[in-house]
Amino acid sequence: MIHLDINCDMAECFSRGRQSEDLGIMKWITSVNIACGLHAGDPHLICRTIEAAIKHDVKIGAHPGYPDIQGFGRRSMNLSVNEVYELVLYQVAALSGMTRALGGELHHVKLHGALYNEAAERPELAEAVVQAIADIDEELILYALSGSKLVEAGLEHGLQVAEEVFAERAYMPNGRLAPRELEGSVLISKEERMEQTRQLVLKQKVTTVNGEVIELAADTLCVHHESHDVLQFLVEVHKWAKQNDVKIEPITAR
Amino acid sequence: MIHLDINCDMAECFSRGRQSEDLGIMKWITSVNIACGLHAGDPHLICRTIEAAIKHDVKIGAHPGYPDIQGFGRRSMNLSVNEVYELVLYQVAALSGMTRALGGELHHVKLHGALYNEAAERPELAEAVVQAIADIDEELILYALSGSKLVEAGLEHGLQVAEEVFAERAYMPNGRLAPRELEGSVLISKEERMEQTRQLVLKQKVTTVNGEVIELAADTLCVHHESHDVLQFLVEVHKWAKQNDVKIEPITAR
Amino acid sequence: MIHLDINCDMAECFSRGRQSEDLGIMKWITSVNIACGLHAGDPHLICRTIEAAIKHDVKIGAHPGYPDIQGFGRRSMNLSVNEVYELVLYQVAALSGMTRALGGELHHVKLHGALYNEAAERPELAEAVVQAIADIDEELILYALSGSKLVEAGLEHGLQVAEEVFAERAYMPNGRLAPRELEGSVLISKEERMEQTRQLVLKQKVTTVNGEVIELAADTLCVHHESHDVLQFLVEVHKWAKQNDVKIEPITAR
Amino acid sequence: MIHLDINCDMAECFSRGRQSEDLGIMKWITSVNIACGLHAGDPHLICRTIEAAIKHDVKIGAHPGYPDIQGFGRRSMNLSVNEVYELVLYQVAALSGMTRALGGELHHVKLHGALYNEAAERPELAEAVVQAIADIDEELILYALSGSKLVEAGLEHGLQVAEEVFAERAYMPNGRLAPRELEGSVLISKEERMEQTRQLVLKQKVTTVNGEVIELAADTLCVHHESHDVLQFLVEVHKWAKQNDVKIEPITAR
Repeated sequence: MIHLDINCDMAECFSRGRQSEDLGIMKWITSVNIACGLHAGDPHLICRTIEAAIKHDVKIGAHPGYPDIQGFGRRSMNLSVNEVYELVLYQVAALSGMTRALGGELHHVKLHGALYNEAAERPELAEAVVQAIADIDEELILYALSGSKLVEAGLEHGLQVAEEVFAERAYMPNGRLAPRELEGSVLISKEERMEQTRQLVLKQKVTTVNGEVIELAADTLCVHHESHDVLQFLVEVHKWAKQNDVKIEPITAR
Repeated sequence: MIHLDINCDMAECFSRGRQSEDLGIMKWITSVNIACGLHAGDPHLICRTIEAAIKHDVKIGAHPGYPDIQGFGRRSMNLSVNEVYELVLYQVAALSGMTRALGGELHHVKLHGALYNEAAERPELAEAVVQAIADIDEELILYALSGSKLVEAGLEHGLQVAEEVFAERAYMPNGRLAPRELEGSVLISKEERMEQTRQLVLKQKVTTVNGEVIELAADTLCVHHESHDVLQFLVEVHKWAKQNDVKIEPITAR
Repeated sequence: MIHLDINCDMAECFSRGRQSEDLGIMKWITSVNIACGLHAGDPHLICRTIEAAIKHDVKIGAHPGYPDIQGFGRRSMNLSVNEVYELVLYQVAALSGMTRALGGELHHVKLHGALYNEAAERPELAEAVVQAIADIDEELILYALSGSKLVEAGLEHGLQVAEEVFAERAYMPNGRLAPRELEGSVLISKEERMEQTRQLVLKQKVTTVNGEVIELAADTLCVHHESHDVLQFLVEVHKWAKQNDVKIEPITAR
Repeated sequence: MIHLDINCDMAECFSRGRQSEDLGIMKWITSVNIACGLHAGDPHLICRTIEAAIKHDVKIGAHPGYPDIQGFGRRSMNLSVNEVYELVLYQVAALSGMTRALGGELHHVKLHGALYNEAAERPELAEAVVQAIADIDEELILYALSGSKLVEAGLEHGLQVAEEVFAERAYMPNGRLAPRELEGSVLISKEERMEQTRQLVLKQKVTTVNGEVIELAADTLCVHHESHDVLQFLVEVHKWAKQNDVKIEPITAR
């Protein structure tokens, strides 16, 4: 039987702001990545999201990013390797302690935005990130872009790693995500996203932007809370999974 | 003929964040209040909103708030009167200069959140706010809660004042907004909001939570961008206005 | 034999800023309160301070404050009791996890600025703070203004409490600190500060601004890093302590 | 007669913080660059500094930087050219309006930290910066690293430019500042700094780290507020200037 984790980034706004997040998505996902306050999120929103995750039995992860609220952590910052270590340490420590205080247990770490992309490519950043996670708790599972340098760094260091894929993003022949600026980099139609999901989960392969089919490990599938039809898409994935002997469940710690 | 300005707060998130604002609302409003970066908003989002307003011939206002991103400027901060003066000066100066640089002209100032509510009640804060606005530009129009201390302070100082009312908020017998915690303080049904709008605009009166009808000047009507049916509501207001000889147009500077 | 802890607030600026803190003070203090990033401090500065404390065998505390960098956490913010709980939880969790990751153990919590003063007076805030600390780790020692409501809340909840006194601040007859605005509220001369220290430590009493002598428990003495002659003062305190059988050492966990 | 402007960066902390700036330096400088709130500075501190500058007849400049308080604007951020334009627009607009409101007139703009260094090298950033300044006020004088791309961009656009040199920084053979990591990049001894000042001002030349002497225009000399002996150094520069027919005065607008 094939196993599939479905993860979603949350707590990515501010608690008293105009916009709020629908906690209803908790019913359809198996793990949540919670913003830690530096690119978005505040203590109240973080607590509310942890509590909802515990209630729905969703695995809780820290989602650290660059300290850039105006740019939502999506702009590269030229930090030293030490600063990256310290930045991740701070954010994972906060989420780990808060989760425990509220009756849960931190399960994984997934980087956000520019930090996610850069640690996927630059081994020295990947190493700093992995060291910070391990220094907080060696049992934490590292969620990382499938096939990336961060996966390698995590495995080398002895962390359990979950390779992450995206239903709604087009892939380059080297297995990286097509940049958002590229036309067609975001798959709009639900059918396309379902097709890519089926291929990723059943075959652990993906058809890239130039038509090539490449291998890609798919332990966890990322969905985006702000997609307009995310709930319908999730319902359809669950239905398909049931019919195809795919078990939607969290990554099990070894 | 009756005149009605319709204003809306915008630029109240961050430019690269998950959530974005629909500029389509510009077609249906006559003035916009732009967040200035301290409770929300960043330079990119501010510029984008100014440009859209100029394009749609919508009057541009500064929307200063407390420096509290995590609390979205909705939490009171115990600032000195001087600090309030300086805080408003900073934010109005930024918006005024940016608007001029981009080819427009700042038209008004409307406070945000806790600062809006506190300056409506506390004369010494109101005075600091009015002084800051006048020190930037004496031609700026002050948008203030109808009947509030801030209206008085503005008039006393010689500023042009537009008294603001809300279609979707219930009123207390003293003319203040019913606090959000109170049940029924936010009018959900479109029909209720239309009814209150008609009463406010045609009669300059409102029926308060205890059934009393009080007088309330209504120069400008605030709509909220995040209301789920804001566009339909606006379309209906425009239609009603046309049929009732109400002219929807910006406040004219004297 | 009398025991005296000497504590100092640190990491209260930003790591690459113009101003830096002299770690040399570590030799003369027995516990340090580290800013947690919301009123001041950043991950790099926090790590650097934790490492210096471990090296000098100084006990490490979290120093949480209001999220107000512009006001340095010295302005009251009207947070709900829940928000205070969440705010303290976030900051103590971050410091606790970081300290452990770097090879130490968090020893205590001391609030900062306006939060320190408000939790000293308002029982419902004090309770929220105490609950947050206990939810992170019931062994953490609470440093609180001597004789305050926060001391009571901590004891009632079963936390170990260290009552804090100040060498350089004048006291009111009710045992509270004279407000900074009051003339003479900050003791400038070293002799005055030494005299107050001697009285506090040896007699557990203090002479208030109106000449009255009141009882005041003195478990830990706060010194300020930015006082111009802090090092000379500390040398003198150590010398005096040696001659008077006062043992300068950290609060021992029970 | 030779003219020399002496400039200093100020308002680079937060108003209620532990550390404060000595306004006494105003007597010895002719222009001040005021942080605009994004890498440091808050409305109160900005106002206080503007008022002191007006009182001492010191020319007032805006000192915009990257929005990175934790890194004090000293870390590169990968902003788009448009974002740099908008970032500078926001900050210069704020300072320009505040200065006018307080009875002065903004005189110049000098970039801060990583933005200063990057706009000195990258023509497309330099162009964005120059455009933003000109869109606020074409009379503003651009302070830029002597011999840099930013000087070129400013002149090409028709701005008045003041080329800036440093007394305390070692220079590379290409006229750029030796990076701070390099040993000897910061001149410690007052005599060395005086010697470099004399050479820069009288000969418009500097001896670089490899002993080469290169030409370098020197319109304005930067001193750093946090240097331990900055006041003595300034006294000595003034004395030397008097004896050598060098007139210490602000850059005159053409």
